[in-house]
Amino acid sequence: MTAKPATHNLGLLPEGLSDRLPPQAEASARLVRDVLDTVAAHGYARVMPPLAEFEETLTARLQSAGAEDLLRAIDPVSQRTLALRPDMTAQVGRIAATRLAKAIRPLRLCYAGPVLKLRADQLRPEREEMQLGAELIGTDSVAAATEVVTVAIEALQAAGVEGITIDFNLPDLVDQLAAGPLPLDAELIAPVRARLDAKDAGGLVALGGKAAAYLPLIEATGPFHAAMERLEAIDAALGDKGVLASRIAALRAIAKPIDWDITLTLDPTERHGFEYHSWFGFSIFAAGFVGEIGRGGSYAIMHGDGREEPAMGFSLYPDPLIDVGFGREAARFLFLPPGHDADQAKGLRGQGWRTVAALDEADDGRALGCTHWLDVAGPVAY
Amino acid sequence: MTAKPATHNLGLLPEGLSDRLPPQAEASARLVRDVLDTVAAHGYARVMPPLAEFEETLTARLQSAGAEDLLRAIDPVSQRTLALRPDMTAQVGRIAATRLAKAIRPLRLCYAGPVLKLRADQLRPEREEMQLGAELIGTDSVAAATEVVTVAIEALQAAGVEGITIDFNLPDLVDQLAAGPLPLDAELIAPVRARLDAKDAGGLVALGGKAAAYLPLIEATGPFHAAMERLEAIDAALGDKGVLASRIAALRAIAKPIDWDITLTLDPTERHGFEYHSWFGFSIFAAGFVGEIGRGGSYAIMHGDGREEPAMGFSLYPDPLIDVGFGREAARFLFLPPGHDADQAKGLRGQGWRTVAALDEADDGRALGCTHWLDVAGPVAY
Repeated sequence: MTAKPATHNLGLLPEGLSDRLPPQAEASARLVRDVLDTVAAHGYARVMPPLAEFEETLTARLQSAGAEDLLRAIDPVSQRTLALRPDMTAQVGRIAATRLAKAIRPLRLCYAGPVLKLRADQLRPEREEMQLGAELIGTDSVAAATEVVTVAIEALQAAGVEGITIDFNLPDLVDQLAAGPLPLDAELIAPVRARLDAKDAGGLVALGGKAAAYLPLIEATGPFHAAMERLEAIDAALGDKGVLASRIAALRAIAKPIDWDITLTLDPTERHGFEYHSWFGFSIFAAGFVGEIGRGGSYAIMHGDGREEPAMGFSLYPDPLIDVGFGREAARFLFLPPGHDADQAKGLRGQGWRTVAALDEADDGRALGCTHWLDVAGPVAY
Repeated sequence: MTAKPATHNLGLLPEGLSDRLPPQAEASARLVRDVLDTVAAHGYARVMPPLAEFEETLTARLQSAGAEDLLRAIDPVSQRTLALRPDMTAQVGRIAATRLAKAIRPLRLCYAGPVLKLRADQLRPEREEMQLGAELIGTDSVAAATEVVTVAIEALQAAGVEGITIDFNLPDLVDQLAAGPLPLDAELIAPVRARLDAKDAGGLVALGGKAAAYLPLIEATGPFHAAMERLEAIDAALGDKGVLASRIAALRAIAKPIDWDITLTLDPTERHGFEYHSWFGFSIFAAGFVGEIGRGGSYAIMHGDGREEPAMGFSLYPDPLIDVGFGREAARFLFLPPGHDADQAKGLRGQGWRTVAALDEADDGRALGCTHWLDVAGPVAY
């Protein structure tokens, strides 16, 4: 073999960064558009934060593990470290706390764009993914939670997503119970949460102290109505009409307007992915894909003066759905032979046809993927 | 003053990276959507290349100055240097030459997404900008040029862009004339091109040799029809029915289907921005903004086996238009008071209303930017 320039490698992309080709790229763009159209119709105004920020600005607002997950670049202009955004929610929070700090509340904002992670996670090899969502800033009330969950479901349905499951969570429930009716020594709170998260009943009992009192929460998991009844039984046994009763009432209110064709589940002590949520969280699943395609809940936005502002929102990560074939539309492609009538072709595009014009006598409409060709009288199927 | 945490700086963004807020962000998204809808109707299929690639893959395909203009990051996964894309055309070329190398030609692809430059240029302080466009791969014929110019104009008009000017260029004209009817010493070609580009008649004559023979090209610039007549006079004087005659015929053919409401100009020897174009180039301008908003033309895509494939395309950079106020739509926002009829509100959203639901008795629709509120009988103007 003779030495060849290494140009055959010039098609290689870094791990987790890939091209999306026509059917998937179009399905992805269509899904983003349909979701944002619904969100916009509910009064959420679009914002577009930049792809990169100063690392310190971004990490100041990234919660939990986010800050370790940044792809960094040195900016020769500022001589400072930039980070590519791994998440847009933190950026929307920054906008709400700075340039839109004085905008009247509740403030409704929405967004869509690519985000970049340093490393892929176990479930997905992709490091770049599409994120889109909506944030309701200035309140984390039950009414706000109801709106956010309702809008998320309506948007996904408008985009054609089927078999939607919403899993409700109460991220701070253990903290609240430990501070109230089910007291726990401070050093036991984290282990109790971890055992509950893992549904590890044996491990929970083995922790000793009053950890065993949390055992019934493991059972209050699964299909929404049965799990809620178990949660109500726990509440009745507590005899304390405080935090748990109010959370039960909130979940009932949020679930009430949701259509019967949505599957609801409850996992009150699930923590994974809700580390920065306050009282309410939810995960979104769809038929045809095992992992979650989105999540949301209540959180706080930090202002420059130290004030924390309540907020509620959801984010969707629809790429896995697209990858498993969601949303591929069978388009009608119409071949326009040489000498076709340009006005007739324009009229047909107005009716939804996608036209492919011959540039050369040799162009073959069928080979170019067209389903029809334009005869004088109109489109004819191949 | 007491020391305060530096959180007041946490709203600061790097130079040239900025947030786009509601009216502009929505106008930008709408323009991208409208342009891509038109392009898709002409058979161009969407691709989505990644935000970052290996630096060497990207620079191998970036023409001229592009390679110096990259924001770089070290990828801890591959231990190699990544670069953020400063341009998507090169990525689309890579896709055409690799994963879609065997797809039938002509191959029509379109794209939209953010690109990142290391430094801002003189005209624009932004380092991140939106790029969108369409590429027709496998031919750079006159028919291909006609389609690309026509589709670019139709797409901009569909998006509501007015006062469109198209400036035609013939990037390799001097090379072709120098190799044929107006011979030039090799070392004079670059200086002649530079003087013509600068419209520097005195400088051109001062170059000596046969440079002065190129003087008439400076006058063949300006409004299309008058400039074309001057170009035809040059051709007649040459007495050589070769390259110039064929370029004149091509420009006449490309201009023929263009509507009278588009302003056409000619600058045959303009080179800036067309360094990598072959025989044909064009710039796009719009009313209300002085710089160009897009450009296009013919070029070549490099394949792994060294083969070059002809291609034709255009790219738009619409951000400046958006920044000067293009496309802000006066939306009708409808406040939904507490206890409103949810089905009535849904019906109104279906008619194009954007609704803002009260979450609290204290919510004030007018203060929230609504133009109307929902009474039992329907929307009422504030």
